[in-house]
Amino acid sequence: MGKTGVFFIGVSGYIATAVIAGALALKKGLSDRTGMVTELPHFNGLALAEPADMAFGGWDIRTGSPLESAVSLFKSAGLPSELLSAIEGGLIEVSPNICHGITTNCGRTIELLSADTATERAMTLEAQALKLRKDIAGFREKNSLDCVVVVNLASTEPPLEARPSHETPDGFEECVMEDRSEEVRASAIYAYAAILEGCPYINFTPSNALVPALVELARKNGVPVMGNDGKTGETLVKSALAPMFLYRNLEVLSWEGVNLLGNMDGRVLSDPENRESKIISKDGILHKVLGYAPHSRVRIDFVPSLDDVKTAWNFIHFRGFLGSRMTMQFIWQGYDSLLAAPLILDLVRLSDLSKRRGEGGPMTHLASFFKAPVGVDEHRYFKQAEMLFRYAEKAKESGVHT
Amino acid sequence: MGKTGVFFIGVSGYIATAVIAGALALKKGLSDRTGMVTELPHFNGLALAEPADMAFGGWDIRTGSPLESAVSLFKSAGLPSELLSAIEGGLIEVSPNICHGITTNCGRTIELLSADTATERAMTLEAQALKLRKDIAGFREKNSLDCVVVVNLASTEPPLEARPSHETPDGFEECVMEDRSEEVRASAIYAYAAILEGCPYINFTPSNALVPALVELARKNGVPVMGNDGKTGETLVKSALAPMFLYRNLEVLSWEGVNLLGNMDGRVLSDPENRESKIISKDGILHKVLGYAPHSRVRIDFVPSLDDVKTAWNFIHFRGFLGSRMTMQFIWQGYDSLLAAPLILDLVRLSDLSKRRGEGGPMTHLASFFKAPVGVDEHRYFKQAEMLFRYAEKAKESGVHT
Amino acid sequence: MGKTGVFFIGVSGYIATAVIAGALALKKGLSDRTGMVTELPHFNGLALAEPADMAFGGWDIRTGSPLESAVSLFKSAGLPSELLSAIEGGLIEVSPNICHGITTNCGRTIELLSADTATERAMTLEAQALKLRKDIAGFREKNSLDCVVVVNLASTEPPLEARPSHETPDGFEECVMEDRSEEVRASAIYAYAAILEGCPYINFTPSNALVPALVELARKNGVPVMGNDGKTGETLVKSALAPMFLYRNLEVLSWEGVNLLGNMDGRVLSDPENRESKIISKDGILHKVLGYAPHSRVRIDFVPSLDDVKTAWNFIHFRGFLGSRMTMQFIWQGYDSLLAAPLILDLVRLSDLSKRRGEGGPMTHLASFFKAPVGVDEHRYFKQAEMLFRYAEKAKESGVHT
Amino acid sequence: MGKTGVFFIGVSGYIATAVIAGALALKKGLSDRTGMVTELPHFNGLALAEPADMAFGGWDIRTGSPLESAVSLFKSAGLPSELLSAIEGGLIEVSPNICHGITTNCGRTIELLSADTATERAMTLEAQALKLRKDIAGFREKNSLDCVVVVNLASTEPPLEARPSHETPDGFEECVMEDRSEEVRASAIYAYAAILEGCPYINFTPSNALVPALVELARKNGVPVMGNDGKTGETLVKSALAPMFLYRNLEVLSWEGVNLLGNMDGRVLSDPENRESKIISKDGILHKVLGYAPHSRVRIDFVPSLDDVKTAWNFIHFRGFLGSRMTMQFIWQGYDSLLAAPLILDLVRLSDLSKRRGEGGPMTHLASFFKAPVGVDEHRYFKQAEMLFRYAEKAKESGVHT
Repeated sequence: MGKTGVFFIGVSGYIATAVIAGALALKKGLSDRTGMVTELPHFNGLALAEPADMAFGGWDIRTGSPLESAVSLFKSAGLPSELLSAIEGGLIEVSPNICHGITTNCGRTIELLSADTATERAMTLEAQALKLRKDIAGFREKNSLDCVVVVNLASTEPPLEARPSHETPDGFEECVMEDRSEEVRASAIYAYAAILEGCPYINFTPSNALVPALVELARKNGVPVMGNDGKTGETLVKSALAPMFLYRNLEVLSWEGVNLLGNMDGRVLSDPENRESKIISKDGILHKVLGYAPHSRVRIDFVPSLDDVKTAWNFIHFRGFLGSRMTMQFIWQGYDSLLAAPLILDLVRLSDLSKRRGEGGPMTHLASFFKAPVGVDEHRYFKQAEMLFRYAEKAKESGVHT
Repeated sequence: MGKTGVFFIGVSGYIATAVIAGALALKKGLSDRTGMVTELPHFNGLALAEPADMAFGGWDIRTGSPLESAVSLFKSAGLPSELLSAIEGGLIEVSPNICHGITTNCGRTIELLSADTATERAMTLEAQALKLRKDIAGFREKNSLDCVVVVNLASTEPPLEARPSHETPDGFEECVMEDRSEEVRASAIYAYAAILEGCPYINFTPSNALVPALVELARKNGVPVMGNDGKTGETLVKSALAPMFLYRNLEVLSWEGVNLLGNMDGRVLSDPENRESKIISKDGILHKVLGYAPHSRVRIDFVPSLDDVKTAWNFIHFRGFLGSRMTMQFIWQGYDSLLAAPLILDLVRLSDLSKRRGEGGPMTHLASFFKAPVGVDEHRYFKQAEMLFRYAEKAKESGVHT
Repeated sequence: MGKTGVFFIGVSGYIATAVIAGALALKKGLSDRTGMVTELPHFNGLALAEPADMAFGGWDIRTGSPLESAVSLFKSAGLPSELLSAIEGGLIEVSPNICHGITTNCGRTIELLSADTATERAMTLEAQALKLRKDIAGFREKNSLDCVVVVNLASTEPPLEARPSHETPDGFEECVMEDRSEEVRASAIYAYAAILEGCPYINFTPSNALVPALVELARKNGVPVMGNDGKTGETLVKSALAPMFLYRNLEVLSWEGVNLLGNMDGRVLSDPENRESKIISKDGILHKVLGYAPHSRVRIDFVPSLDDVKTAWNFIHFRGFLGSRMTMQFIWQGYDSLLAAPLILDLVRLSDLSKRRGEGGPMTHLASFFKAPVGVDEHRYFKQAEMLFRYAEKAKESGVHT
Repeated sequence: MGKTGVFFIGVSGYIATAVIAGALALKKGLSDRTGMVTELPHFNGLALAEPADMAFGGWDIRTGSPLESAVSLFKSAGLPSELLSAIEGGLIEVSPNICHGITTNCGRTIELLSADTATERAMTLEAQALKLRKDIAGFREKNSLDCVVVVNLASTEPPLEARPSHETPDGFEECVMEDRSEEVRASAIYAYAAILEGCPYINFTPSNALVPALVELARKNGVPVMGNDGKTGETLVKSALAPMFLYRNLEVLSWEGVNLLGNMDGRVLSDPENRESKIISKDGILHKVLGYAPHSRVRIDFVPSLDDVKTAWNFIHFRGFLGSRMTMQFIWQGYDSLLAAPLILDLVRLSDLSKRRGEGGPMTHLASFFKAPVGVDEHRYFKQAEMLFRYAEKAKESGVHT
């Protein structure tokens, strides 16, 4: 088994930083693997990439070194500074692997974050795709990597209306060649570049990166892809709890959710345009699990003082026997980045495995990791988890080419 | 398919009253079947007893008519008095089916509730068992019933130390014949009588009714039985949520639960001796689901003003990636009796079905209804629910003798 | 002491209905005075109007009898139907005292509720004011009332930009005479009519009824007035808790509030235009109590299934010693109308008292009842309560002309 | 104004450590005074001791240096390790001021914590008092202190039945001389020694230190004293909220409180004997504020994983108009030690001020700091705060001899 690299879109963000810091901590034996799904017994005996051996790099539109990002994350999440000191060297080594990203059509709020939008505005879509491919290839060669997984952790883009050019690989290619830049957003160009480079692509954001054209292209090219929108907190709980109401034949009347968060994710989502994408992927699951649509609402509110400590309150009003009305509430208080990071390591490992197993197109067995899993209608968390466990079982049986 | 009867231990309690009121409301078309699991599509096509056709009766140690109990329940649960008026006639018809119960060895708190403990104290265990059997037989004949299901809804008894006489049917019988009354509590004598009468026995309480000897006797006699301790609120949520932490490889550090309730159940559980049984069955599941035992505690506190509105707060402290510590809390506010009642109708239907299918011994497919399911180690709610759905599937395939 | 009448703007709403039902229940001895501030010992010895003796009437823009409103309220708030039966007669007697109201400039959401907007659109502002005065006068005469208190319980209007015509009594009168209807909304015309009729006016809503011109007119005419926006739940708690953080020198970083409600109030507030008024009055108090403005947000979300059961969640993030960050949350679940109703009885009693004491203009001693008290900068609840208690003390000392 | 010293009972505990760390941080300009009441504008112009200039020392029964304690506290409370490095020198300087404490009659749970109980068991009460006096005097001389304030932060002792010897100074002295050690516990001997040394004594614990005899002795000797049981979290909120229900004439039916904590305080309180003292002082205030005793219960549960992050859930069930039943809940999550530490600095400053002003006996103006304030029946937090502000006002007017 060769060496695996991870190339982040949004490498300076909290989640990417937590992934890198975590891998370095594992390397030093300073942390354990709590939170990593692929460390469950179900995966024993599968040849999976070792986080400690992974190389990291990626794009960002903001300036700032991995070390600076880590200082900020450690403060926000109350992580021990001894750990930071111990991994400082490793963080610095990531710097040469960082390239400037693109913000094509990402909306004003994201563009304002960018250190330089002038250069890319001068580039055609084709030129952008080429640049991104070169960035990936450079990372791969410099670090002698066997497989590079591209992971989208960038800020949420506004939703994108479906277009004919999103339907087929040829249509998409034509759109790129003709530089019809209003028809795509950055996340899709990244995905396009990754797929053409043969790199698995994980869309951990709600952005509309994996349009049907690119999923099809991935299938044709034998490149595994998956998304959308990592399921780390409120929606995870929702997908674990909603089936309980279903199986007990209790009628959910209303399910109201409020999310307070203060990190960069929260700042970008405080723009109603960008938030729209997120709310769509968060709110869809109730209907799909329950088979009917109760009154529901998902609020995402930016509360700067909270930084990375996401706090979600959910209020569930339900009807039982003899017309009785009852309630359940839950409050979730977690570090968004530290919940996401181990799952990213899982997704990289499993993408790398899929690649080696010669699988292309959507990795539907990864549905449990996403709020809006591509190609999967199952939203009950436990059913999704079982899909993953069954996949692991089969992979073990068939053996994995390393 | 003949007529089905339900004989409650604790017929004047809120749950039995809610079951009877519910069945009468269904008969009048004044309520729907929300909360009944057997109304899920999985059960379509199975011949199940119709609640509206069931006959109801049972034992109680308190005096008071079903109508009086209903007045009190309706007030506590805020149910509409129009409904009460509509079912008054039906409630009155239950009165002749009520017999005086026994409190043998139930502890002081329960004995104090009894209107008459003198008579039973004068009876040997054998005489008590005979009396109970006659009560059941009388109910069956008077109402021309094909099957009578005995459902234990009585107040929780203190735990009972295991004895050799609990091990084998012969040992238990000997204990009864020799009147060694300190070795059994009332719930087991009820179970013994029910099994000898060929009546399915459901232990919806944490009391130690289904000792191994009686489970074995049930198996030998072809009588379906199941328990223990109905899973209606906090523990239901626990068994739905705990697997989420397991599957995400998040370490539960502490899981603290507080239950506030004000009904008769709450009053009896305010006696530490009786509470002990409940806490054992509520607290066991974490260890079994997670595979390790986090710090956990279950408080049950009597708060008279709440009456039947159970309020539970759970605080879950868990550890994630890089040693991060996070929390989840939930608050459950529900009418205990109205959550339990539809499940009782389900259990009666499914016991009756098992009887007709010639099944004896523990109905392990009913695990999802119980906090401490007899003969089942699986505590993940969704796995338990699937066991039930698979059973329904098989029962449909094999056809049911009606 | 003569007889007191209460004339509601929004007489068919839940709050007015709860006031009337409450007064009737008191008359029959079927309820107690829990929730009425004027029943505290501080008011012993003051001659206050007896709720059981009050006459009720008012305007509404919807059709529907007081009895119909009561049926709906009793269901929503789970009140006993025996009580409803007992007061049916009294509710019917209110019907002849109901007049059709106006919706001038109230915004589309409110206008859509109106059974008839054609008639009033044909009327000039002057004609509207005259009609309203006649309605009041008719009520007073028919019921031989000494004092009529007008209480605004109508749906919240959108905010109204300040205009020169709001500044002085003459300016306002001119605006009415010249029919410049875009400069006023219905609530101010009601207030104008009430003041001209010598009737105390209570603005229990956030609508901008008590513009400076009308406060001045009230002062000149010796008519007591007060508002704005009854303080019944979330804001009450806020004004009780915020001083605690102030006095402990703990820095509030963020105070986020979410209100879920499903009654007519909630429906109208689901229109962002109308909600704006409410949020302004709810959100202002933190700054005034703390002396600085923490990050704060007040959400008001319409959740139809909740009907009158208002549920508010507040999340407070604060900073303590050594930069430590801590949180407090509260959850308030109350019947909005039943919280407001006894306060309305208090306000009527105290307005009537002020009238008899010859006081005109804003009754600043009533600040504790309002979210945005006219002419009062003090928002600490306990200080406001003490202002009221001191007023009662003085009123007792000076004696009251009855 | 001379130099002020603070001598802690329990100097190695989290609270004392937080006080010392805080004072050192202030000295270095690395923290602000958030959480210190005496920094409110009300105290401007009063000559108060400067924390940065205070000397610290005290007794403990456990071994371990201030630096070790700080390492543990900083980890538990997520404080930045940069700060710890900066104050390391200061912490080390405290070590020579630490003496071994006594555990006389403190119960098994506390005794088990002690590094050496043999020595003190061999000492008479008189000898113990002498030793403690010498410890104080040594600290005063070595550090050239003008005033030493003794602050009890030791683990909670079990309650102590009232005895005749607790009634008068002479009685108490006799009891000490006759070595009737079963009649006193350690906290009272500490208080006795402090008072005889002329040192103000603050009892921040619920232990029964300030028996009437010692309060009287303090009054006679002109030594200010105050207690009992610092009010930092749940009870603080309770005393701020309960008056709201009172002033709104809403009837509290039940007020249930659950406290989860994992620090040393929590460990000792997990012994029911010791907990008893705490619950008494926490639970008393409702009756005193409301004028009636609703159903109430205070649970204190040890949850080791929480360490210093105290989490309290309170559930309030109340009755409003027309018999309606409503609820309020609050959740408090705070660092117990960091909430207490700034209040300790306040109490030291105000004790020192009282001493200079020649006041002896209970400092009743400090009621707002305590759950069970000595000699004060007022439990409404805001009234208590005003007592303090008025005292500050008067002190300013009269001037303070420095």
